[in-house]
Amino acid sequence: MSDPTDLTVAQATAALTFGQVTATDLTRAYLARIERLDKAINSYVRVLAERALAEAGAADARIAKGQRRGVLDGIPYAVKDNMDTQGDVTSDGLAPRGKPAATADAEAVRRLAEAGAVLLGKLNLHEGALGATTDNAHFGRCHNPWRAGFTPGGSSGGSGAAVAAGLAPFALGTDTMGSIRIPAAYCGCVGLKASYGLVSNLGVTPACDALDHVGPLARTVNDAALVLRVLQAPDPEWPGSAEPPANWSPLPADLPDLSGIRLGVAGVVERFQMESSVRLGFSAAVGMLRRLGASVATIEIPGYEPTSARRAGLLWVEAAAAHAHEPFLDRYPDAYPAHIRAMLDYGRTASAARLARAQDMVQRTGAGYVRALEAVDALVMPVAPQPAFSFDEPVPATQAEFAAPANFAGLPAVALPSGVLADGLPLSLQFVGRKFAEARLLAIARVFERVVAFDRRPPL
Amino acid sequence: MSDPTDLTVAQATAALTFGQVTATDLTRAYLARIERLDKAINSYVRVLAERALAEAGAADARIAKGQRRGVLDGIPYAVKDNMDTQGDVTSDGLAPRGKPAATADAEAVRRLAEAGAVLLGKLNLHEGALGATTDNAHFGRCHNPWRAGFTPGGSSGGSGAAVAAGLAPFALGTDTMGSIRIPAAYCGCVGLKASYGLVSNLGVTPACDALDHVGPLARTVNDAALVLRVLQAPDPEWPGSAEPPANWSPLPADLPDLSGIRLGVAGVVERFQMESSVRLGFSAAVGMLRRLGASVATIEIPGYEPTSARRAGLLWVEAAAAHAHEPFLDRYPDAYPAHIRAMLDYGRTASAARLARAQDMVQRTGAGYVRALEAVDALVMPVAPQPAFSFDEPVPATQAEFAAPANFAGLPAVALPSGVLADGLPLSLQFVGRKFAEARLLAIARVFERVVAFDRRPPL
Repeated sequence: MSDPTDLTVAQATAALTFGQVTATDLTRAYLARIERLDKAINSYVRVLAERALAEAGAADARIAKGQRRGVLDGIPYAVKDNMDTQGDVTSDGLAPRGKPAATADAEAVRRLAEAGAVLLGKLNLHEGALGATTDNAHFGRCHNPWRAGFTPGGSSGGSGAAVAAGLAPFALGTDTMGSIRIPAAYCGCVGLKASYGLVSNLGVTPACDALDHVGPLARTVNDAALVLRVLQAPDPEWPGSAEPPANWSPLPADLPDLSGIRLGVAGVVERFQMESSVRLGFSAAVGMLRRLGASVATIEIPGYEPTSARRAGLLWVEAAAAHAHEPFLDRYPDAYPAHIRAMLDYGRTASAARLARAQDMVQRTGAGYVRALEAVDALVMPVAPQPAFSFDEPVPATQAEFAAPANFAGLPAVALPSGVLADGLPLSLQFVGRKFAEARLLAIARVFERVVAFDRRPPL
Repeated sequence: MSDPTDLTVAQATAALTFGQVTATDLTRAYLARIERLDKAINSYVRVLAERALAEAGAADARIAKGQRRGVLDGIPYAVKDNMDTQGDVTSDGLAPRGKPAATADAEAVRRLAEAGAVLLGKLNLHEGALGATTDNAHFGRCHNPWRAGFTPGGSSGGSGAAVAAGLAPFALGTDTMGSIRIPAAYCGCVGLKASYGLVSNLGVTPACDALDHVGPLARTVNDAALVLRVLQAPDPEWPGSAEPPANWSPLPADLPDLSGIRLGVAGVVERFQMESSVRLGFSAAVGMLRRLGASVATIEIPGYEPTSARRAGLLWVEAAAAHAHEPFLDRYPDAYPAHIRAMLDYGRTASAARLARAQDMVQRTGAGYVRALEAVDALVMPVAPQPAFSFDEPVPATQAEFAAPANFAGLPAVALPSGVLADGLPLSLQFVGRKFAEARLLAIARVFERVVAFDRRPPL
């Protein structure tokens, strides 16, 4: 075995099963790679080497006895630091605020631990999960592995960077208005936000529980599906929990091409002001989808206006986050950077009636998406109107406008690489599917992924 | 046939089928009774005699050709005046505000019209559906048919009074925090709020769409079930619409008794400060349920605090209603009584973060109810901590505290008479069931209804 950190989850699970590598080898290889590369990238805020080696040892002992628990047993991963891990203070990307150490793993982490996965550490994020650059004031900025000085996106920027840089085979992120898919897009990996209710938010610091989704970032669509299969389970302790239809599984069928698949592009997205590289890349992706046999039609989604909808969603998030951070904000104001304080103050001072109006627009936008999907198998669009940008440039307000409606609708959405820009940065495509139709969505994404043949790792 | 207005829906449908009465006879009998009695009760704000007679004539023509559409074909009813009926201005219980006439029936009305039901008119309500006395400043107070000068409850007070007084065999109301069940309780009829999502809110003036439920008030549990069967249908135009499990039906099985039925009483309800008549009546009802074979256990619902939960729900309603009334409130301030203006102003001035906190509490309360129902078939409680009261008395703040959590949880709930007070006013009981388990809930209610043998109509 050359470098075990080259393996995808699917490859690593085969290697573990056939004894070509041990979980401890794999874990040590990742810990060494983090040690070697992450000073420059800064994707980890905390490496949990002791827990990782203990979990890897336990996995190896099970494997040695022929009792491997499943596909993720012995596979390392890392989590965004807004999710609880037992015994650690969850930073939420902020300076210390007197938060006690978590007494239990977040439900998603608990399920992975139960499946035997090996927790490498906690990942950098945009402060409070309330932005999309991961230019973190307390932990330091996280760099895009494809270009230092460029943002990895956010708020799960550390998750995107760690997966892209080969510092974890997969990572967990959270996605409130695009926070898994935007870093996946900027970093050139796969980001999956499942249907709302499938993955528990328990033990995750809320941005806005009604829009928050826990999900994987991984190197391939298939790996993301394997992780989601373990994450999914109704959680009676979480009010948002939903039971999928019987026989639900995220594992995609292996389609030969996209014959018979109907895809829709929202007219308002086609007309949207986006960076020319993104527009050209999207046109090329649509052309490729057509050559693969899909029909791609322009669809008008009544009442869908990306900018107003994003603003409405943002107000909801600001208000819910202001509520969630209330115990800390007044006592530890300095822990919050000015731009985050401004957002939370806005949530505290905007009126309840304005929030009600915003929630109404969020719901109508989501309903428009659900309706549009009656006529097509999936909607297709860029993840964001721009690729990764320099930390020196102003932050574009439009980052989340294509991503957020899937959160508003609770629909599954996957971001995956669609090519490489002339300057070497990744381009990305997003598919949004029907509620609980993860398998179909990912089957479509896999056909596209196969023809793109994106080089999964930057030259590090 | 003596007086056709004595007939329940089930009896009237048999009489229509066997030609003992025509829809036109039935409609004229109701119109005459409204003419004779409603000046004193004031349950109708508008009688639609022309539409009613046209719809009755059409039903009779179908019946004559052997083409009766179903159980409700030719059956009169009336609707609360916050629901659109084509060609009429929906008043929402308020003075004219320049609202245009509705261009279509509300979806619930449309479904009843399609089933052949005969719309008698629009019913009085608490102003804006934002209170529970129906002491309406613009249309005049609606009186409780059991005692003039006493409230029929609200906000669907006209619906409760009309059904109790025999001015309609059934009526539609809306229930945001108890607005169907409270008037049903105060007026001695049956009020049914189904699982959220089963009945469309389209064409209904929102108080708070996420908590609003359209449903029937009727004389018997069975009649309410027959109406709900027609009302239920997924509405792709309404974001809240939900598809029930296959083979869902509200029609209850005819249980011989309650053997094997597990009922729960929330400890916090048992300990709640309620009027002694209600407490005694509730104890008697629980005793009766036990004699019928049910087990009745006290349950602690974690995090359920009726008063805080009601206040949280109220803030949400105030904010959502402030948004809904925004087009009118500034231009027609005088159309809004002072106590309603105060509520809407509160919704406009409270902060978005406070609303987010309130929504969080509403959701947790609802989740507590859902959890509690894992251990029992239904929760049982009084509908309100007090029976109908005089318009001269101050309005008790606690009216909705036992009713609102079913809205927060989206669970089906039915109110039905449980006896008569010494002074002749009705007493009432409420069952709350599992999501989509309307048939089981109503089966339990029917067994109880049978032994109560409540005299359905006041002496008018």
